[in-house]
Amino acid sequence: MSLTVVGSIAFDSVHTPFGERERMLGGTAVHFSLAASFFTEVRPVGPVGEDFGPAEFEVLERRGVATDDIERVPGGQSFFWRGRYEYDLNVAHTEDTQLGVFADFEPKLSEESRAADVLFLANIQPDLQRQVRALCPEASFSALDSMNLWIETARDSLLAAIAEVDCVILNDAEIRQLTGEPNLARAARAVMEHGPRAVVAKRGEYGAALFTEESFFALPGFPLEDVRDPTGAGDSFAGGFLGYLDSHEGDLDESCLRRAMGYGTVLASFNVEAFGTERVAGLNREEIDERFHQLHGMTQFEPLPAPSGRVSPA
Amino acid sequence: MSLTVVGSIAFDSVHTPFGERERMLGGTAVHFSLAASFFTEVRPVGPVGEDFGPAEFEVLERRGVATDDIERVPGGQSFFWRGRYEYDLNVAHTEDTQLGVFADFEPKLSEESRAADVLFLANIQPDLQRQVRALCPEASFSALDSMNLWIETARDSLLAAIAEVDCVILNDAEIRQLTGEPNLARAARAVMEHGPRAVVAKRGEYGAALFTEESFFALPGFPLEDVRDPTGAGDSFAGGFLGYLDSHEGDLDESCLRRAMGYGTVLASFNVEAFGTERVAGLNREEIDERFHQLHGMTQFEPLPAPSGRVSPA
Repeated sequence: MSLTVVGSIAFDSVHTPFGERERMLGGTAVHFSLAASFFTEVRPVGPVGEDFGPAEFEVLERRGVATDDIERVPGGQSFFWRGRYEYDLNVAHTEDTQLGVFADFEPKLSEESRAADVLFLANIQPDLQRQVRALCPEASFSALDSMNLWIETARDSLLAAIAEVDCVILNDAEIRQLTGEPNLARAARAVMEHGPRAVVAKRGEYGAALFTEESFFALPGFPLEDVRDPTGAGDSFAGGFLGYLDSHEGDLDESCLRRAMGYGTVLASFNVEAFGTERVAGLNREEIDERFHQLHGMTQFEPLPAPSGRVSPA
Repeated sequence: MSLTVVGSIAFDSVHTPFGERERMLGGTAVHFSLAASFFTEVRPVGPVGEDFGPAEFEVLERRGVATDDIERVPGGQSFFWRGRYEYDLNVAHTEDTQLGVFADFEPKLSEESRAADVLFLANIQPDLQRQVRALCPEASFSALDSMNLWIETARDSLLAAIAEVDCVILNDAEIRQLTGEPNLARAARAVMEHGPRAVVAKRGEYGAALFTEESFFALPGFPLEDVRDPTGAGDSFAGGFLGYLDSHEGDLDESCLRRAMGYGTVLASFNVEAFGTERVAGLNREEIDERFHQLHGMTQFEPLPAPSGRVSPA
């Protein structure tokens, strides 16, 4: 039982209608690792600069995240992102991106990271995703995320990476863009024809849907009256989803995947309640399980047959 | 057990990427009535012109819909709508609207229609909705739909109408617009503060959510690989929802409202599979119940406790 993730480890400056923060700890691998840390041992892989110090390492280590494969590059600067959200929190407006040490990133994995049972290739250049996938041949379940940039500029590489994983986790607009198919059910099927056995469509506030060869499952987003910063929600979803799967003993069957969708939904909902990692870094498992049970209560209904007395001529 | 609906009875010309039709039978009261006809006796109220003939009446009567309160205005033309959808089927582009006999509509309800147990005020001018509401004092459950036009031009009337019903059924963007509150959970609460005990947020392909004072419930849209024409989906949803409620014996409690959400979702899904009323008019109850059970299977998950073995320090 162990989970490796490759992705960005970053500083984010974010402005939303509900506040702003400068140079918060962020990045895909960070949000993912913190969310997954409630379920299993996580090993993030990625480069940071000299600006990444003990305070940042401590946020991860307090959650039991193994930081040995976070590579600190002498003289370098960490990946930096500045973005703004208006009232439609589904849309991020990027104002600045500085790759820093990420520009020359060549993944180096320790033996422990290579031995991962579950592997997540967060949104990075697809050739890098393939390199890491090749270094973790024993992973029994692997998943990747991506974005419009790679769909537009590295489509063949991305399709090759997709062919090598078990599960693709993308926004629904990205699934449509990747396949050129406006119907999501058809688009998900087209992705599975490249190899994956599962496709997760992230739908922002509307939740997430899981497509497999034989079935469809969907959950709404957990309803929140206070959403402050959506940055990292998708990675927290993936962290809850894959963290739960890695903790599961036995087959990753349909019922297990569905519960994992529930934990992904719950971790994403905590993520957006505060800026950056503020909420998830301070969570505990009891809060997570309580919200999981609330989500269960919000989605279940009784399939009783229709009552008698109808006058329909059918 | 009887259900009255007031709304448009119309001809629609619709163009989608998947085909087009000229002057199909349509209108809010028609889509609603056909969907509800599988559960209960429905009485649509509304005006038509001389262009509305035996063929149109027959579509309704074959489904057992009581057409006595459809008022045929001598020399008049029926309401007509022409619209177009691009690949984003969530957005209708209106190209022509001719009110015809609807311009001078004054609701006249027979004794049978006034005696309705359940009442649906489809999207019409809110003062007309209030007139009809006042004519049906015995309705134990009433609901209304509306649109951006009335929110912008008749907001006070609309709020007065909302205060007189048990349930509001609107698109989520309309709920936000009505309340000026970007957060949907807060916006739904603000609507309930005007009087209704329930708010249904329609979310297009993402399904629908039910807010009550104590609870939240949401269902995804039924996944379809072939969506041809979304016109009328919201009214078919309302027809399945209120038709089921009217057929229900006993209290309209939370579990009953949730099953009604399921039937609404199912009827909306059949509606969009073909143009106009083509699919719903030819349905049978067995197909509806089969899809209801499929929807149930796509939304349920087991709330098992997380397995042992986690290493989280939490």
